[in-house]
Amino acid sequence: MIKFLDLHKVNQRFENEFQEKFKAFLASGRYVLGREVETFEHDYAAYCGTAHCIGVSNGLDALTLIFKAYKILGKLNDGDEVIVPANTYIASILAIINAGLTPVLVEPDQETFNISPKEIKKAISVKTKAILAVHLYGQLADMDAIQALAKAQDLLVVEDAAQAHGAIHNNGKRAGNLSHAAAFSFYPGKNLGALGDAGAVTTNDSALAKTIFLLRNYGSEKKYINQHLGYNNRLDELQAAFLNVKLKHLDADNDRRQHIALKYLAEINNKKVLLPTCKAVKSHVFHVFVVLVTDRAHFMTYLQAKGIETLIHYPVPPHQQEALKTFNTKKFPITEAIHQRIVSLPISPVLSHQDVDFIINTINTY
Amino acid sequence: MIKFLDLHKVNQRFENEFQEKFKAFLASGRYVLGREVETFEHDYAAYCGTAHCIGVSNGLDALTLIFKAYKILGKLNDGDEVIVPANTYIASILAIINAGLTPVLVEPDQETFNISPKEIKKAISVKTKAILAVHLYGQLADMDAIQALAKAQDLLVVEDAAQAHGAIHNNGKRAGNLSHAAAFSFYPGKNLGALGDAGAVTTNDSALAKTIFLLRNYGSEKKYINQHLGYNNRLDELQAAFLNVKLKHLDADNDRRQHIALKYLAEINNKKVLLPTCKAVKSHVFHVFVVLVTDRAHFMTYLQAKGIETLIHYPVPPHQQEALKTFNTKKFPITEAIHQRIVSLPISPVLSHQDVDFIINTINTY
Ligand SMILES: Cc1ncc(COP(=O)(O)O)c(/C=N/[C@@H]2[C@@H](O)[C@@H](OP(=O)(O)OP(=O)(O)OC[C@H]3O[C@@H](n4cc(C)c(=O)[nH]c4=O)C[C@@H]3O)O[C@H](C)[C@H]2O)c1O
Ligand SMILES: Cc1ncc(COP(=O)(O)O)c(/C=N/[C@@H]2[C@@H](O)[C@@H](OP(=O)(O)OP(=O)(O)OC[C@H]3O[C@@H](n4cc(C)c(=O)[nH]c4=O)C[C@@H]3O)O[C@H](C)[C@H]2O)c1O
Repeated sequence: MIKFLDLHKVNQRFENEFQEKFKAFLASGRYVLGREVETFEHDYAAYCGTAHCIGVSNGLDALTLIFKAYKILGKLNDGDEVIVPANTYIASILAIINAGLTPVLVEPDQETFNISPKEIKKAISVKTKAILAVHLYGQLADMDAIQALAKAQDLLVVEDAAQAHGAIHNNGKRAGNLSHAAAFSFYPGKNLGALGDAGAVTTNDSALAKTIFLLRNYGSEKKYINQHLGYNNRLDELQAAFLNVKLKHLDADNDRRQHIALKYLAEINNKKVLLPTCKAVKSHVFHVFVVLVTDRAHFMTYLQAKGIETLIHYPVPPHQQEALKTFNTKKFPITEAIHQRIVSLPISPVLSHQDVDFIINTINTY
Repeated sequence: MIKFLDLHKVNQRFENEFQEKFKAFLASGRYVLGREVETFEHDYAAYCGTAHCIGVSNGLDALTLIFKAYKILGKLNDGDEVIVPANTYIASILAIINAGLTPVLVEPDQETFNISPKEIKKAISVKTKAILAVHLYGQLADMDAIQALAKAQDLLVVEDAAQAHGAIHNNGKRAGNLSHAAAFSFYPGKNLGALGDAGAVTTNDSALAKTIFLLRNYGSEKKYINQHLGYNNRLDELQAAFLNVKLKHLDADNDRRQHIALKYLAEINNKKVLLPTCKAVKSHVFHVFVVLVTDRAHFMTYLQAKGIETLIHYPVPPHQQEALKTFNTKKFPITEAIHQRIVSLPISPVLSHQDVDFIINTINTY
């Protein structure tokens, strides 16, 4: 059986280091916002090329904190519109609503599945104050076009980089450093995954960083002094320790993902299976490898019978979820068509050459 | 040097078990909402005597989720008033505001430092919909009087049990089972403390429990199906594993705290140091042992010079914090007087008999 993602195997490579970290953690007696969090924030900012990284509880909170902090800083206000892809994980949209802002859903580009700059342009209103660009599946959104639109209209740009750790734009900058502020998730299945929930915000905006540092810790910088109506959204010290181990291997892991992806792209040659486009390899870190098929159920059952596990990212688009009732009557045909046909194939740094070949052959004989 | 709280020593007792848990955790490859969370929820509900326990990210989120869930269930609405002690950790009040409700601050009883039922009665308006009873320092609030008031006015009662794990009312019920719903924090320093942030909600209300189960997981029960506008507020699997180890020792740890407290109460006999009242030993689990002195700075410096570390819970009352600007002009004289005079002495399950005697003698010769 080839698992969709063998996380045990992914992490087994680091077990000795994790054990060492755990021992040191126990010996320190310091369990909250200690050295490991500080080190991670320093190193992850350096990795992304940003001035600041603030470790937080998870990806959804990272996004929400960015919006809430901009409200405190007076750059966003209740009810302001934020443009967001209709084709995303629902958390992108939840963050906007939970921060008291209004999401405006926009169709994706048919080829990249990422938000379409043309459609953004149509959706901009006088109420629009920000664009949330999601780097879906690990591929950078069209940041040049998005930045151009944003500059013309004086909009904030926020990246949802939950799926794109390490992706490099052709200007040499990484995901997390392509906008005013970016949110990362280190959910275990991510390219950089903790052993539980974890997240971070990266930014070059010092005022924003400062505000988020306060908000994640009850609105407090100095113990027992509370400046803001804050939250408890700290990055766990032990999870930070694990992330410090894994960050060193992120580039190598992404290389392996890209290698597998290029092999899939070159060698899967079944006409019933539409392959994703990837314009610049460095700009796509293949968090998931998504193909389009017309007979999805049949295709997935076939692969399952051959011992290949697949997933769907995602089976139901956000606008059709009960949670987003006010959107249920709206139509996003491109998003809906994508959701009906996508299948995610196994891809990970520990997927063996043999398994990759087997997957390719199995698909080609479908 | 006697630390205020030697957390390393507290946890060292369980290091072997933690190591075993960590190994099993790594071997499982299951890092989010796994067996440890389930076991903890089952065992902690049983411990508290409630039908449900929902593990969540921390104490502040536990409180906030209770209020948000009641809003979804139609029992609370935007702007409803919630009565809360003026004399509490600021998180109690943050939760109310962050859930879109209006906190109404009420003075404490001079003897117990807990919210005064008489003052609650005066504060009840037509807008009042709930009372948040905080079991401050580990001592149960006057739940009989609070419940009587609530019943008469049809109000919800919520416990902030962040400091009172295991406290037993004279009706035999524990903290967490004395109201409609209770929030717990397992911050490392708590009587039941994780090795990072963690929290839980206990309740006998199945509808509330169900709603919080959804809200903590993106509003989703079934993967990829989102019913509510949810959050990411999960209890960490590894923290749950540590809590499962420590829960077995909670009663013994509380016994030791009570033993030390009784010794302090019996043997500290310096007229300059006012001792706390404790009406029923079982109803007070002495999360902190708080005395009143008039010359606090002097007293703390004296103890520090003798090698005894103390803390203040808390130096600045919530209504005087910058975060709560609209309250800054209000006066809460009892709360303010308490905040000016309180000092927390060392107390913990690992404080040695020798240290306890030394602390008593040092205070008596002040
Ligand atoms: C664009 C965007 N924005 C914001 C967010 C929000 O970030 P968050 O708050 O940190 O979740 C996301 C999150 N995104 C992800 C989302 O993409 C989805 O990811 P998924 O691939 O469906 O996740 P999964 O199926 O739970 O795990 C993937 C595989 O890994 C295996 N596994 C998993 C776990 C947890 C384990 O312990 N052991 C395992 O063996 C099982 C599966 O085969 O669901 C998650 C809960 C979110 O965090 C996002 O994609
Ligand atoms: C009524 C009520 N409601 C809601 C809440 C909110 O719950 P929460 O969201 O889970 O925090 C609280 C939280 N309450 C506590 C609050 O009481 C306060 O507690 P505190 O005693 O001042 O905490 P501390 O000084 O950080 O730790 C106590 C001692 O332990 C040592 N220590 C601590 C840590 C963390 C360590 O790793 N190693 C150590 O050696 C240092 C100190 O001497 O501040 C915390 C951040 C809150 O979680 C509350 O009291």
